[in-house]
Amino acid sequence: PKVVTLPGDGIGPEVTAAAVAVLREVAPDLTFEEHLLGGAAIEATGEPFPQATRDALKTADAVLLGTVGGAQNSPWNQLPRHLRPESGLLALRKALGVYANLRPVRVQPGLEHLSPLKPELSRGVDILIVRELLGGIYFDQDRKIDGDTAYNTMRYTTPEVERIARIAFWAAEQRKGRVTSVDKANVLEVSELWRRDVTALRDREYPRLHLNHEYVDSVAMLIVSDPARYDVIVTENLFGDILSDLAAVIPGSLGLMPSASLGDGPGLFEPIHGSAPDIAGQGVANPAAAIMSAAMLLRHGLDQPHAAAKIDGAVSQALKTAPTRDIGGTAGTQEFTAAVLQALG
Amino acid sequence: PKVVTLPGDGIGPEVTAAAVAVLREVAPDLTFEEHLLGGAAIEATGEPFPQATRDALKTADAVLLGTVGGAQNSPWNQLPRHLRPESGLLALRKALGVYANLRPVRVQPGLEHLSPLKPELSRGVDILIVRELLGGIYFDQDRKIDGDTAYNTMRYTTPEVERIARIAFWAAEQRKGRVTSVDKANVLEVSELWRRDVTALRDREYPRLHLNHEYVDSVAMLIVSDPARYDVIVTENLFGDILSDLAAVIPGSLGLMPSASLGDGPGLFEPIHGSAPDIAGQGVANPAAAIMSAAMLLRHGLDQPHAAAKIDGAVSQALKTAPTRDIGGTAGTQEFTAAVLQALG
Ligand SMILES: CC(C)[C@H](C(=O)O)[C@@H](O)C(=O)O
Ligand SMILES: CC(C)[C@H](C(=O)O)[C@@H](O)C(=O)O
Repeated sequence: PKVVTLPGDGIGPEVTAAAVAVLREVAPDLTFEEHLLGGAAIEATGEPFPQATRDALKTADAVLLGTVGGAQNSPWNQLPRHLRPESGLLALRKALGVYANLRPVRVQPGLEHLSPLKPELSRGVDILIVRELLGGIYFDQDRKIDGDTAYNTMRYTTPEVERIARIAFWAAEQRKGRVTSVDKANVLEVSELWRRDVTALRDREYPRLHLNHEYVDSVAMLIVSDPARYDVIVTENLFGDILSDLAAVIPGSLGLMPSASLGDGPGLFEPIHGSAPDIAGQGVANPAAAIMSAAMLLRHGLDQPHAAAKIDGAVSQALKTAPTRDIGGTAGTQEFTAAVLQALG
Repeated sequence: PKVVTLPGDGIGPEVTAAAVAVLREVAPDLTFEEHLLGGAAIEATGEPFPQATRDALKTADAVLLGTVGGAQNSPWNQLPRHLRPESGLLALRKALGVYANLRPVRVQPGLEHLSPLKPELSRGVDILIVRELLGGIYFDQDRKIDGDTAYNTMRYTTPEVERIARIAFWAAEQRKGRVTSVDKANVLEVSELWRRDVTALRDREYPRLHLNHEYVDSVAMLIVSDPARYDVIVTENLFGDILSDLAAVIPGSLGLMPSASLGDGPGLFEPIHGSAPDIAGQGVANPAAAIMSAAMLLRHGLDQPHAAAKIDGAVSQALKTAPTRDIGGTAGTQEFTAAVLQALG
């Protein structure tokens, strides 16, 4: 199988190299092809998502992404919107048709002290956030700034709601069987449709699963004050952007948070942390999230669950034997990666 | 001056009665007139914001609100959207023209242990969230469900952005002088307009204040992992709904969180907690947030800062001498209120 790698910007290349090294170890059948995305692509071609990258996706079985974007004052952010690094990321998601973003939030046993929450709240947290990734206000066609007025429209259709809800229900069947659908149905018609369609799908196809509905403002509170109440959370694109980042702080380091984006073709796998331009090139970035994303690539993208589990186990061990700076240790990127490789065998 | 009280639903009447008792003590010049809103109004008149309530606002100098809404399975939630309790609240905001929602988030010294955050993170937190309250996706005119598609449009105009930013800058001048404007400018045109107009206003009218811009997903993380970095946060309606509720968990009990909504006419003052139907009528609700909202009414609504400060001091004391159940004590609503009255003199 062919993995297209898109190292991207900032610490992206360093952590992607670590993930590739680990993949080579556990899945020798993989081939890799590197392409440009984001700021790196802008520098080389003037576009954040060049045609060569787009073409490469056609023969990919899975895509491994590093990180995209520059510092806040980067000249990339002065470009017209469609030429900025983030637009490359959005266009990539669209081109791959990856409508479901899966973000597991798990507090590693023994690492509770890293959490900003009290240990009695963070202990045992194990949430899967399922974010709709190709709809809503992100992909509105009529968006505009018109003199001193600007508009963006949040829009969802029943088929869009059903396909993401189905992913959440499918995931819940393999977990504790509880799905919380998040909306703002007391204010938004879009949420009314969302709630109606999610409920109807559960009744029709997943009658055994437990489904409840909560408002986004309330979930923002409860995910911090009582995270243990959640199993699978499913929500629309913008709410998912906010809530998945919020939940990601619970384990204490973004360096520990992988993600998978799935559709009907090749999946997209990436750490959720940013490009961290301040530490790029220094060899100190924690590659754990990228390596765990590689594990998700094997599990969800290539149906190699055993190899995936091996990586997850090795990462857990390396976090103890060679902790990186973000979790209170001293190991650099290469040292941590070496510890993972050693734990693998 | 005349205060219109709208006790509303659930624990609303209990906590409003407590706040009125405290106001009578410190501001004997006030008169009170009680009216219906929300579920209580639906029961009595069939409408969540009846004409009699609307008329009463015309002669009000300030409005003191309890809480609005029923349990999730309440029959009120089965009504057409415009007849539900929440629509009454939105219509009230609109009728009063209160475009600026101010929510102070302060961790009371000695009560750090109540926070879900580690004490070293919650200690000394003092944030003011300024939420735009009459615009954006909440008040869209073209909202609809059309078969299997639904739409809501987020829209802002320069005058709307400027008037809320001005409130944030005005507040920052009396605090540490730092404003963080929150948007999603890497995706939304509305945010691009917002960022442009907030920046221009600062440059023009408040050049001495420190302004920075952050993305809403990033703020959701940082408000939990590093709340001390914020002084004043200003944002649009939907982001403000989510972030202000999120920030409200930091002090550890919603029972401690007041709010003020300001416009060009009478202001609206209310605790941010919900109607808590599960404990309504039992005399156990913590009225501190309602009483602190009454203090905000005196400070921002009637220009009586001294009386307001007296109330705040008395509440701080009562939290120590007669803590309620939500903060680990045993005092009921009346006992806590009596402790506040005693501390007042
Ligand atoms: C960079 C940005 C466009 C992106 C998003 O909002 O989707 C990011 O925040 C994410 O969550 O992957
Ligand atoms: C009840 C609801 C309409 C309201 C809002 O979203 O504004 C509430 O959540 C609030 O924040 O006051």
